[in-house]
Amino acid sequence: MTDLCIDLDDVRAAARRIDGVAHRTPVLTSTSVDRILGAKVFFKCENLQKVGAFKFRGAMNTVAQLTDDELARGVATHSSGNPAAALALAAAERGARARIVMPTTAPAVKKAAVEGYGAEITFCEPSLEARETTLASIVANDGCVEVHPFDEPRVIAGQGTAAMELLDQTDALEAVLTPVGGGGLLSGSAIVVTESAGDAKVWGCEPAGADDAFRSLELGAIQPSIDPDTIADGLLTSLGEHTFAIIRDRVVGIVTVSEAAIVDAMRLVWERMKIVIEPSAAVPVAVLLERRNAIDASRIGVVLSGGNVDLARLPWSRK
Amino acid sequence: MTDLCIDLDDVRAAARRIDGVAHRTPVLTSTSVDRILGAKVFFKCENLQKVGAFKFRGAMNTVAQLTDDELARGVATHSSGNPAAALALAAAERGARARIVMPTTAPAVKKAAVEGYGAEITFCEPSLEARETTLASIVANDGCVEVHPFDEPRVIAGQGTAAMELLDQTDALEAVLTPVGGGGLLSGSAIVVTESAGDAKVWGCEPAGADDAFRSLELGAIQPSIDPDTIADGLLTSLGEHTFAIIRDRVVGIVTVSEAAIVDAMRLVWERMKIVIEPSAAVPVAVLLERRNAIDASRIGVVLSGGNVDLARLPWSRK
Repeated sequence: MTDLCIDLDDVRAAARRIDGVAHRTPVLTSTSVDRILGAKVFFKCENLQKVGAFKFRGAMNTVAQLTDDELARGVATHSSGNPAAALALAAAERGARARIVMPTTAPAVKKAAVEGYGAEITFCEPSLEARETTLASIVANDGCVEVHPFDEPRVIAGQGTAAMELLDQTDALEAVLTPVGGGGLLSGSAIVVTESAGDAKVWGCEPAGADDAFRSLELGAIQPSIDPDTIADGLLTSLGEHTFAIIRDRVVGIVTVSEAAIVDAMRLVWERMKIVIEPSAAVPVAVLLERRNAIDASRIGVVLSGGNVDLARLPWSRK
Repeated sequence: MTDLCIDLDDVRAAARRIDGVAHRTPVLTSTSVDRILGAKVFFKCENLQKVGAFKFRGAMNTVAQLTDDELARGVATHSSGNPAAALALAAAERGARARIVMPTTAPAVKKAAVEGYGAEITFCEPSLEARETTLASIVANDGCVEVHPFDEPRVIAGQGTAAMELLDQTDALEAVLTPVGGGGLLSGSAIVVTESAGDAKVWGCEPAGADDAFRSLELGAIQPSIDPDTIADGLLTSLGEHTFAIIRDRVVGIVTVSEAAIVDAMRLVWERMKIVIEPSAAVPVAVLLERRNAIDASRIGVVLSGGNVDLARLPWSRK
C-alpha cells in the first residue's frame, strides 16, 4: 500500500471542517526550557485541545463527513483512552449517538470522561480480542459506524491539522517531533510537513519500552506491539497499514527514549511551562533531553499530544 | 491620595515597553468549565507568562524606565515569591544587577528560581522587620534602586497590560476578576477596564482567611493583613496607598472565598484546562464556584495570576 490515499488537500479540507469546533491551540515557548534542551523549541499545545488531546481533530473530521443516515445510526469504537473521549465529543457535536467498548479495568476517571460527553459504554473483558468481538457485535446489531482510532484516512487528515497550524504559527522550523503510538498523529504531521514549503524534517518519538514503530521501520514491515512496558499509556498500539506506509515514506527516523527521561521531560514541562501534559506527550521532549544529537536541527516544533493524567497519581509522587 | 498618579496612557506606554520581552499570553476557554461555573469564562493565562506570573510585566515596565546610572547601581527588593523572580529576570534583561532579600525559611525551589535568573540573595530572619532592615542596609550601602513589588505606579501600569491584552483578545466582557494581595494586579486591571470602551466591571477576589482588602474597602481605610491563614501564598500582603486608592474608586467589590473552594477551583482548572495554576490564581475561579451569585455577569474574564507551585506537594495529595 502506498500513502497516496491522503495528501495535503485532505488536511486543508479537514482544517476547514473542524474550524470553530476544535480549538486553534497556542504555540508556547520557554527561554529556560530552550536553554536546557539546547534548541529553540515551539510547543504546539494539543493538551489544551478539546478533550485534552489532538485526537479530537481526527474524530471531528471523520464525524463531520458522515451522512445523515450514518449519523442516525451512530458511531462506535473500542478504547479506554483519548480516542474514546474524542469520538464521544465529536458525535455529541453532531447530535449523534456514540457507543464505546471499554475494558472493565479502565480507570474510573476515563469512564467518567466518556460518559460526561454523553457516550454509552459497553464493558468487556480486558483483552484485545474481547474488545474487537464486543465492538463487532454492536456494529452488527445496531448498525453503528465503526471509527478506527488512527488507521483511517479521515482521522489521519484531521490529526494533520495540528502540524498545519504549527507551521502557520511559526517560522523556519527545521524539525517537527511527535510521539508515535498507532501513528495517526505522526503520519498526519508528516504529510503536512513534507508537502509544505520549508525544509523541516519529521521524527517520530517512542518509548524504548514500546518500540514497535522503531522496529517496524528497521525491518520494513509492521511489527506488533508485544507486552509494551511504558508509562506513556497512549503509545501502546502498533502501527496500521495506512500509518505505516506514510511514516515509512515520509519520516526521517524514530528515536526511542528511556522511562526516566520521559518522567524528567514531563516534570520539566509542568515546572517550567506551567502546563499539564501526559507521559505520552513528554516523549518528544524526552528525546531532546536524552538524545539531543539524534535530531539535527536547532529550531524544532514539538506537538504536545495530550494532557490527560490522573492528578492524584503523579510519577514523581510515587516513591 | 487620589489615583490620578496613573491612567490608561501609562498602561499603553507600559505595553509598548514590554512588547517582545514579556509574553502575550493566550486566553483559553473551556466548554466544560463554563458549564460548571455557569458563565462564559475567558482565562487570561498569566501562569504562562515569563517567571510563571504576571509580576514580570510590572517589574519589566519599571526596570525598562531606569536610567543608565540607576541600572549601573542595580535594583533590590525583599520577597520570597514571584516578585523576586520577576525583578531578577527583568534586571537580567537589561544587564543590571538584582539583589533580593529573602527570609532564611524560603523554600529551596524559590531560592533556586531567583538564583537561576542571576540575582544575588541576601538571607535574613523571617520577619517583615528583618526584611525591611536588611533591604534598607543594602540600598544605603550599595546605592541600589529599591523596587516595591506592588505599590509603585510603574509596577501597577505594567500589571495593567494583562487586562489590556485580555480586552483585546475577547469581546463584550461584562466582568473582569482578579485575585487581590497587595493590589497591583487588581488596581492595574481596574484602570484599564474602567477607562476602556465597554461596560465591564471589575471585582477583586480574596481568600476569607486573608480578607484585609475586603475589610479595607468596608472600612474605607487600609487594614493590615494580620496572621493571614490561606493556601494562597501570593495574597498575604495588605494593600498599599496607591493600590488602595485605585481599588476604592474603581472596583465594584471584593468577594471572599473558603480554602476548600480555592483547592477545588485549582484542581478544576488543572483537570479540565490542563494548565498549572497556583492557589492564588485559583481564587477568582473559586469565587465563580462558591459565590457565583456575587458576580452579576455571564461573560467573564479571569486573570490567572500565576503557576508557581511545588509539584511534589499538591493540596489534593496531602491527606
